[in-house]
Amino acid sequence: MNFIEKLQRAAQRNYSLVCIGLDPDPKLMPENVGVYDFNKAIIEATSELVCAYKPNFAFYEAMGREGIEALERTVKCIPAGIPVIADAKRGDVGNTSKAYARAVFDIMGFDAVTVNPYLGFDAIEPFIQYQDKGVILLCRTSNAGAGDFQSLYCETSEGRRALYEIVADKAQQWNTYGNIGLVVGATYPEELRLIRQQHSDMLILIPGIGAQGGDVALTIKYGLSPEGDKAIINSSRQILYASRGMDFAEAARQAALNLRDELNKYRGINES
Amino acid sequence: MNFIEKLQRAAQRNYSLVCIGLDPDPKLMPENVGVYDFNKAIIEATSELVCAYKPNFAFYEAMGREGIEALERTVKCIPAGIPVIADAKRGDVGNTSKAYARAVFDIMGFDAVTVNPYLGFDAIEPFIQYQDKGVILLCRTSNAGAGDFQSLYCETSEGRRALYEIVADKAQQWNTYGNIGLVVGATYPEELRLIRQQHSDMLILIPGIGAQGGDVALTIKYGLSPEGDKAIINSSRQILYASRGMDFAEAARQAALNLRDELNKYRGINES
Repeated sequence: MNFIEKLQRAAQRNYSLVCIGLDPDPKLMPENVGVYDFNKAIIEATSELVCAYKPNFAFYEAMGREGIEALERTVKCIPAGIPVIADAKRGDVGNTSKAYARAVFDIMGFDAVTVNPYLGFDAIEPFIQYQDKGVILLCRTSNAGAGDFQSLYCETSEGRRALYEIVADKAQQWNTYGNIGLVVGATYPEELRLIRQQHSDMLILIPGIGAQGGDVALTIKYGLSPEGDKAIINSSRQILYASRGMDFAEAARQAALNLRDELNKYRGINES
Repeated sequence: MNFIEKLQRAAQRNYSLVCIGLDPDPKLMPENVGVYDFNKAIIEATSELVCAYKPNFAFYEAMGREGIEALERTVKCIPAGIPVIADAKRGDVGNTSKAYARAVFDIMGFDAVTVNPYLGFDAIEPFIQYQDKGVILLCRTSNAGAGDFQSLYCETSEGRRALYEIVADKAQQWNTYGNIGLVVGATYPEELRLIRQQHSDMLILIPGIGAQGGDVALTIKYGLSPEGDKAIINSSRQILYASRGMDFAEAARQAALNLRDELNKYRGINES
């Protein structure tokens, strides 16, 4: 089963578009709980409420080799039916991207990876060659500085287009195996609307709701495919750190449930 | 001593602009030599011939946790006077880039890092805040697909500029602490000429000579600052895999010496 199928099944089974960003931050975690134990408790409490998990590598790498070990163990403890996205934002010249692809897919066992498109096709192609895996290209990111380059207007043979639109066009063109998706931040609803309008069937990973301030109603209104799916809506801090006490897992479950139900309300789905 | 000073001193002491890319590839390495032992032998044979070393993280991550351990040990065995560049091409939203910066600088002890600019200023800023460290932004990369996005012409208040030129302009503008550099591939000499013309004093890391086909004479002609420095010229495979036999270190030394002297010939420097 490929990534997109696995994702769709999890989303349907759990009535959920929620992806939890597993971004452990010792400054926000309950004291005396190790990273792996923290993640494991969060996963056990929420795995029936999500369509995917998405650990961001930075938080693990910042803890040195112990962090990497916790990341590897975390991936292994996620139930088989839930896809796991490596939020690694990798991308390098062809020969080197091949090594990165091996690292995230073969060594660490992820189902999908986020990739930075700046280096162009040969940086992305080694990831795409893993046809069962998902390759989610940064298109319009959720951060404040996203516009510095992504919103520049460029000349193309079809006229004037923003860089992020061109990235989306290329993603569509390169999507021979149907395994490419895009990252578009909920913090930029107008850009999300535009991208969805131009790529009705493409998978979109949408970070930026919750702590980053993206609007939930607009995210649902603009982010979904005509069938009401093909969107992964990520929340990290709002769920992980719902409580700093020893009830963190139960609090995370409640936060995930609330978010799922809020999203479903706007989707017109009533199922708990 | 900050990164640029350390680099300049090493370059002067060793009469060298050569940076060796420590990119271990088991398919090309001599059999039965571990990654750390391989790197250590290469470093011992070449540390008086280079201005820097640059391990690319992909090759280590592709070997799992053992690879990361070999990377950490490699950084530690490089002589203190030679700067070490983390070729990691990182970059994420502000909060997350901060974790990446901690990983490469505080945890792993690198002197500089390559950063992908696609996410904009807040993705780059946490790295820049380490004022003694180098932050080398991808500008015009050496690979075939570099032009897919980097060469797009964009609208700016100063008129029509290629994306990679805009990245270089921003790098200059953000360079408050003097610790930013640019990656420009030797495989695109015209672009290298342009960037150097527009940013005479900026540090440029130049990959792409050797296996990738960049021209050495043009690299020197176009890549250096008016003082004949501020360039790091990287070679990986051509040096590391000069021999696959047990004489690999001696062969690497000879290849590094040849490259150094060839570069110096074009620089008009005669010193061995």
